[in-house]
Amino acid sequence: MALKFAKRVADIKSSEVRELLKLTEQPDFISFAGGLPAPELFPVAEIKRVNELLLETEGQAALQYSTTEGFEPLREWIANRMNQRLQTNFTKDNILITSGSQQAIDLTGKIFLDEGDVVFCESPTYLAALNAFRAYGCEFVEVATDEQGMVLEDLEAKIKQYPQAKLIYVIPEFQNPTGLSWGLERRQQLAKLSAEYQLPVLEDNPYGELRFEGETLPSIKHFDKVGNVICTGTFSKIFCPGYRIGWLAGEEGILQHYTIMKQGTDLHSNTKAQREIATYLAQYDIDEHITKIRELYRHRRDTMLQKLDDVFPKEVQFTRPEGGLFVWVTLPEHVDVTPILQDCLAEKVAFVSGETFYPTSQKRNTFRLNFSNMPEDKIDIGLEKMGRVLRKYLEN
Amino acid sequence: MALKFAKRVADIKSSEVRELLKLTEQPDFISFAGGLPAPELFPVAEIKRVNELLLETEGQAALQYSTTEGFEPLREWIANRMNQRLQTNFTKDNILITSGSQQAIDLTGKIFLDEGDVVFCESPTYLAALNAFRAYGCEFVEVATDEQGMVLEDLEAKIKQYPQAKLIYVIPEFQNPTGLSWGLERRQQLAKLSAEYQLPVLEDNPYGELRFEGETLPSIKHFDKVGNVICTGTFSKIFCPGYRIGWLAGEEGILQHYTIMKQGTDLHSNTKAQREIATYLAQYDIDEHITKIRELYRHRRDTMLQKLDDVFPKEVQFTRPEGGLFVWVTLPEHVDVTPILQDCLAEKVAFVSGETFYPTSQKRNTFRLNFSNMPEDKIDIGLEKMGRVLRKYLEN
Repeated sequence: MALKFAKRVADIKSSEVRELLKLTEQPDFISFAGGLPAPELFPVAEIKRVNELLLETEGQAALQYSTTEGFEPLREWIANRMNQRLQTNFTKDNILITSGSQQAIDLTGKIFLDEGDVVFCESPTYLAALNAFRAYGCEFVEVATDEQGMVLEDLEAKIKQYPQAKLIYVIPEFQNPTGLSWGLERRQQLAKLSAEYQLPVLEDNPYGELRFEGETLPSIKHFDKVGNVICTGTFSKIFCPGYRIGWLAGEEGILQHYTIMKQGTDLHSNTKAQREIATYLAQYDIDEHITKIRELYRHRRDTMLQKLDDVFPKEVQFTRPEGGLFVWVTLPEHVDVTPILQDCLAEKVAFVSGETFYPTSQKRNTFRLNFSNMPEDKIDIGLEKMGRVLRKYLEN
Repeated sequence: MALKFAKRVADIKSSEVRELLKLTEQPDFISFAGGLPAPELFPVAEIKRVNELLLETEGQAALQYSTTEGFEPLREWIANRMNQRLQTNFTKDNILITSGSQQAIDLTGKIFLDEGDVVFCESPTYLAALNAFRAYGCEFVEVATDEQGMVLEDLEAKIKQYPQAKLIYVIPEFQNPTGLSWGLERRQQLAKLSAEYQLPVLEDNPYGELRFEGETLPSIKHFDKVGNVICTGTFSKIFCPGYRIGWLAGEEGILQHYTIMKQGTDLHSNTKAQREIATYLAQYDIDEHITKIRELYRHRRDTMLQKLDDVFPKEVQFTRPEGGLFVWVTLPEHVDVTPILQDCLAEKVAFVSGETFYPTSQKRNTFRLNFSNMPEDKIDIGLEKMGRVLRKYLEN
C-alpha cells in the first residue's frame, strides 16, 4: 500500500483505554480501567415500554430522517434541566443534539481549530478530547491544575505567551481523570478571563449529575456575560451510553456554525434514540433513576476509598471525589507505573496509567481507577491484589 | 462576538436542500426536493417486536458502550450481503459501522485530505459529500461525466494535471443527483486507473439495492486488485434512515485508520440501533421488505416519467433511471432555473436546483426531482404545476 493519508493520521494513536477495554472483556477480569456506567441500573423494562408507546404513536417519524438541530421536545428538556441545575439561561434554540458529547468535542475542534492553533487544557485532562482536537492539527498547552481547578494566574500568563491560542477546554465537575471539581471563584474568574481575551471555553460536563455529597455549584456558563462559554452534556451517565446522545449548548450565533458543520459530519443524530429518550423523560421520573445511580456509585466509591486506605501503601496519594466515576492515584515521583500495570494485568486487574492524560508532561507515576462498573466484592479483591503489587514496587 | 473560528467555517454553507426541507414540512407542500424514503413502508410493527425481543434478551448490552468497529453479527451480515450482491470478497474484519454513510464520507475526508489536496468527482455529484470533504480544505476537480459514468480519458488527463490529488469520489449506482449508473467497462477501468496512479476511490453506494429493472453489475471494488477501493453503504434506503447506521468496507490496513479516527469523532455508533437492525435481519426477511420498496418506487418513477412526458415542454430533457430515488432534468442551456424554482415554491411545489451539485461549474439550467417520497396523485399534481411554470419560461 502506497496510499497517501492526511498528516493527521500519523498524529493520532488508538486510545489505550479502548484497547485495554477489549482485553478486560474477559469475564474473570477485574477492571477499574473504563468509564462504563453500571449496566444493572439501565431501565431496560421502562425502555421496552417506551418503545411500545413510541412505535404505536409516532413510529414513522421516529424512523425517518430529521433535522440536524435535533428533536425539539428533547432540546427543550435539556435547556430547562441546565437552567435549573447549572444556573444557565438557555432555550431550546441554544441546544444542538450531538452523537454523544464526544461529537460535541470533535465539532468544537472542527469549528475553532486550524493547524498550529493552541488549546489550553487542565493537567491532566480527558484523553479522548485530546485525540478529537489533535485531528485538527492543534498543539496543547497544559495549565497548572490544583484541587480547585485550573490555576488561573498560570492560564493568564500562558494566554499572553501563546497568541495563537483558540480554545480553553475544561471539565469542572468530577473531572476525568482526577474526580475533582472546580471551586466557585475559579469558575467566575475563568469566565472573566475568557471575556477579556475573547477566548472560547468548552465547559465539558458529563458527570455533574452524579454528585454524592456537597453542593452543586453554578456552571462557568452562569458567569459568562459575553457568550464565549459553550457547554456540553450527555445522557450517557444519567441514562444509557449506547444511545450516543449528547448535546451542545451555546449562543445561537456560535451554535449555527456547529449545526452547519454537523450536517456534513453525520446529517443528524439518531432520530429514534432522541425520541426514545424524550418519551422516557415524559413517562418516567429520571430524578428517581439518577438517585439510584448516585446511591450505587456512592457505595462503590466508599468501598474503594476504604479499601485504598486499608491496603495501599501509605506513601500513595489519592483523590476523594464527591461524585463522578473516578479516583486518581499518585505514586511517589520516582515510581514508574508501567511495570506495575503489567503485573496487575497478569493478575487480571486493569486500570489506566496516567501518562496518556497529559498531552505534553511526562508523568509516569499516576493512574486512574474507575469505581462505577465493578461490584463491591470485586473492588475489594482487585484493590487487594493491586496493594500487593504496589508494596512490591514501593518497598524495594 | 469577536471569536476566531477555523478557516473552514467560512468555506461551508448550510445545505440548501436541508433548508428547503424545513420549508416543505408544511403539510400542503408537494416536495420533490428531499431524498426521503417513503415512511409508510417502514416496518414499524416488526421493529416493535424487535425491541421486545432485544430488550428481553440483551437489553443491558444494547444500552451500554460498545466497540468502535461495531456489532460483529451486523458486520458479518454486511460483508456477506456485499459479497453476494456486488461480487466483493469481504469478511466482518473489513467492515466498520458508521453513523450513516454521511459519516463514512466525512471520515474519508478526515483520513485522506490535507489542505489544498484535490478530490476528483463526477459532474454533477452528491452535494453533502462536497461539504463533508470541504471541511478538510480540499479543492474539487470535476471530471466529465456521461451516461456511462466518469469519462476516464478526462480523469486520466486530470490525474496528470493535478499531482496533489488524493481521492476519487464516485456514486456508480443510481447516482445522486442524476439517477444514472456506471457501465461495466468504466468500473473496470476506474479500478485500473486507481491502481496505476495509487489513488484511493470512495465507491459510495446508498441506492444500489433499489434497482427496478435491468441487471446488477459488479462493483468497482470487484475489479480492485490492490486494495485502493473503499466502499460505503447504508441501511437508510433499505430499512430506516432515522437509525443513522451505515458502513465502510475496505482493506484492514486502511480501515484501521478509519477506526482510530472514528474513536475521536463519536467513540462508536448507537449500540441499540446496531442490535435492532441485526435482530430484524435475523427475525425477518429483508429481501421481502426491499421488494416492497422497489415496487412502490418503481410505480412512482413510472408515474413521474409518464407525467414528465405528458406535461413538460419537449425541449426539456430528463434521465430515465433504472432505480434509486431521483430524476435529473436539464433545461435548454440559456434557461436559468432560479426564478422557476421561486415560482414553483409559490405554488407549493419544491425541488432542488442543480447548481449546488456542481462544485465548480456554473450550470444554472438543471434540477433534481425525487420520486420516492410523494404518492402518485401528488406527483401528478405537482408536475402539472411545474409544467405550467416551465412553459411560461420556455415559451417566452
